[in-house]
Amino acid sequence: MIQASVYGKRRDRLAKAVELSDMDVYLVGSREGIYYLTGASYVPEERPFFILIRPEKTPVLIVPKLEKAHMEKSGLGSVRAYTEFPAPEGEAWADVLISCLDGVRKLGVEPDIPGHIMDQLSEVSPVLSPILEEMRQVKTAEEIKLISRTAAYADTGMKEILKASYAGATVVEIFSRSRAVQARVIRETDYDPMESSFLMASWPAPFSAQPHGIPGVDDRMGKGPLVAISYLRVNGYAAEVERTYFHHPPTGEEQDIFNDMMKARALGVSMIGPGVPCHEIDQAVHDYLSSRGYGKYLLHRTGHGIGLGNHEAPFVARGSRDILEENMVISIEPGIYIPEIGGFRHSDTYQVTGNGYKALTRYPDDLESLTITAKKPLRRIIGKLMCKSLGIK
Amino acid sequence: MIQASVYGKRRDRLAKAVELSDMDVYLVGSREGIYYLTGASYVPEERPFFILIRPEKTPVLIVPKLEKAHMEKSGLGSVRAYTEFPAPEGEAWADVLISCLDGVRKLGVEPDIPGHIMDQLSEVSPVLSPILEEMRQVKTAEEIKLISRTAAYADTGMKEILKASYAGATVVEIFSRSRAVQARVIRETDYDPMESSFLMASWPAPFSAQPHGIPGVDDRMGKGPLVAISYLRVNGYAAEVERTYFHHPPTGEEQDIFNDMMKARALGVSMIGPGVPCHEIDQAVHDYLSSRGYGKYLLHRTGHGIGLGNHEAPFVARGSRDILEENMVISIEPGIYIPEIGGFRHSDTYQVTGNGYKALTRYPDDLESLTITAKKPLRRIIGKLMCKSLGIK
Repeated sequence: MIQASVYGKRRDRLAKAVELSDMDVYLVGSREGIYYLTGASYVPEERPFFILIRPEKTPVLIVPKLEKAHMEKSGLGSVRAYTEFPAPEGEAWADVLISCLDGVRKLGVEPDIPGHIMDQLSEVSPVLSPILEEMRQVKTAEEIKLISRTAAYADTGMKEILKASYAGATVVEIFSRSRAVQARVIRETDYDPMESSFLMASWPAPFSAQPHGIPGVDDRMGKGPLVAISYLRVNGYAAEVERTYFHHPPTGEEQDIFNDMMKARALGVSMIGPGVPCHEIDQAVHDYLSSRGYGKYLLHRTGHGIGLGNHEAPFVARGSRDILEENMVISIEPGIYIPEIGGFRHSDTYQVTGNGYKALTRYPDDLESLTITAKKPLRRIIGKLMCKSLGIK
Repeated sequence: MIQASVYGKRRDRLAKAVELSDMDVYLVGSREGIYYLTGASYVPEERPFFILIRPEKTPVLIVPKLEKAHMEKSGLGSVRAYTEFPAPEGEAWADVLISCLDGVRKLGVEPDIPGHIMDQLSEVSPVLSPILEEMRQVKTAEEIKLISRTAAYADTGMKEILKASYAGATVVEIFSRSRAVQARVIRETDYDPMESSFLMASWPAPFSAQPHGIPGVDDRMGKGPLVAISYLRVNGYAAEVERTYFHHPPTGEEQDIFNDMMKARALGVSMIGPGVPCHEIDQAVHDYLSSRGYGKYLLHRTGHGIGLGNHEAPFVARGSRDILEENMVISIEPGIYIPEIGGFRHSDTYQVTGNGYKALTRYPDDLESLTITAKKPLRRIIGKLMCKSLGIK
């Protein structure tokens, strides 16, 4: 659990950044942004929530009336409520918000602010500013602890996936392991369902060559490279581990591609350290894989930041201007995707340290550990029963 | 399942609306908007997806390279892919998008477009336009069928909740019933996990007076009004049913408040019909409840539209300019929230018909059906085992 005083410090740091950017007010409206600054979890639906950060003044939280009682847990002295969405004239969110901006000369807003909110603010000429996103990139000690805990659960999730998987297992059997990990989190932590999610899944080949395509619940693990993902958020903080694995001894070709993926990954990981431009890591990995002939089989960047968001800055991508600093947390996950064969991708969560990196997920990554040819008769029986209950043949 | 030709018709209708609004192009970037126009489900993360709707020209879909293979299921001839987020100069989403806007004089965009996307489009002066949101308000016959099916599952969910609930039941025992409904949907439909969600939950009193606060997983159903919600999206389309119920014979005061809620609800429902301004319904319900002395216990509007979104236009709220039309689908759900006692709210999903309305959820709503004093020894044993496995005392 993060202590209330930590949120106060974050708000103070942001207020300092607002001052340094010569803004009078910075308007935070994103769910993650408000959670980062208050620890208050909520589901906004279409009703906007705001926190106004002002140098040398207390912040103001603006919420729908519906949410006032429970948002007072944010510990902010100043909580103002508006009447629903939409609302009678004079009682709407825009009325309350604008009444708080009297005399404001320069208003900063988050880059993902919706257009219709920008529109209501046009009189005060808001300026897009990523100061909060930038501040969130470097994690505090409390955050590293929470991400490390999620990373340990991600490793547990990977273990569950690989225990549940066998040649012939359905997608849904593996997906159902998410619940085992969730149950552990409920048992062992101060569980916040609003700020937690659990995705344990496995992509059969050759579908694994579509990393963002969604297999059918009744698709089955067969030959070729399978890609397992264990992708969690536990009480606010995310982590991920992904593994390429096999239920048959991999062919020579599959071994070669696997090894090239491993080399690209090792190259990316070896470059992690403070002061390193993110685009250089992605460029090096991209060049290496291209030189090995995989140019047309690359679909995505080498990695991304992890924190409150499963994906956030810094982005380990060509074209990114982010530079690694101590206590940033990123994934490294170069992937090779060959339509007829399948996908090859490992992903891990890394903390940037003072002189390099620390792996926060640690599931075995070698081909031997990831070639799983056991018959698993009990799993097959459980799987058959589950499929029967779900009407899957 | 909606047939591919239906999506083509939707795109054509939108193209007509674009033409009538004197725009050259309308840019759709919301996940629901793209799903509505193509039937293609996906998880965007931070990578923008776009569809450009152009009068008399074929639409263009712009997606990250990563998603190209599976987004081709959209059936759009013209799919263009960009390189990641961020990306090397000349290969980013903005480069691809802008190359498609050559010669455009007037570009319409959805009102929730993120500020940083608006910013990239500043040269073509985009205009916020809700034409797609407006088009989505009136449902087609296929959509009514799908919402009705979800509504039937919502009723099933309510039945599951009330079967699982007893005096002393924990929040988590009831929440776990979501899975039973999900299993049924997997068995009985062409299940799309990306476009489905299942929330079966119950709020104990007096916490039920905070309709958007989140009870702890180990909170227990006790005396006072409990509020159960069965809130689903099944393969794209949403529906909801909510009930106030009791595990002890309600006190005289509780009966009175329940009856006043029922009268407010009946008043709201009686007004549903084509041509009725939404704000009038909310005003009438608000006036009635205020006249009964509940003015300070009202936290939200009377209802909202339901479709691809759990909440969407039309909004049954004072301040709304929406007017009901045949085949809109809305909730009616006036609530009374008294901090020391708890919440009183029923919600149902209604279709606006040619001469009134049709209830799509139909779970019993009377106090007798909703006073559940059975002991449920088997449920108690199951509940104890579940709590033990989750470490809940």
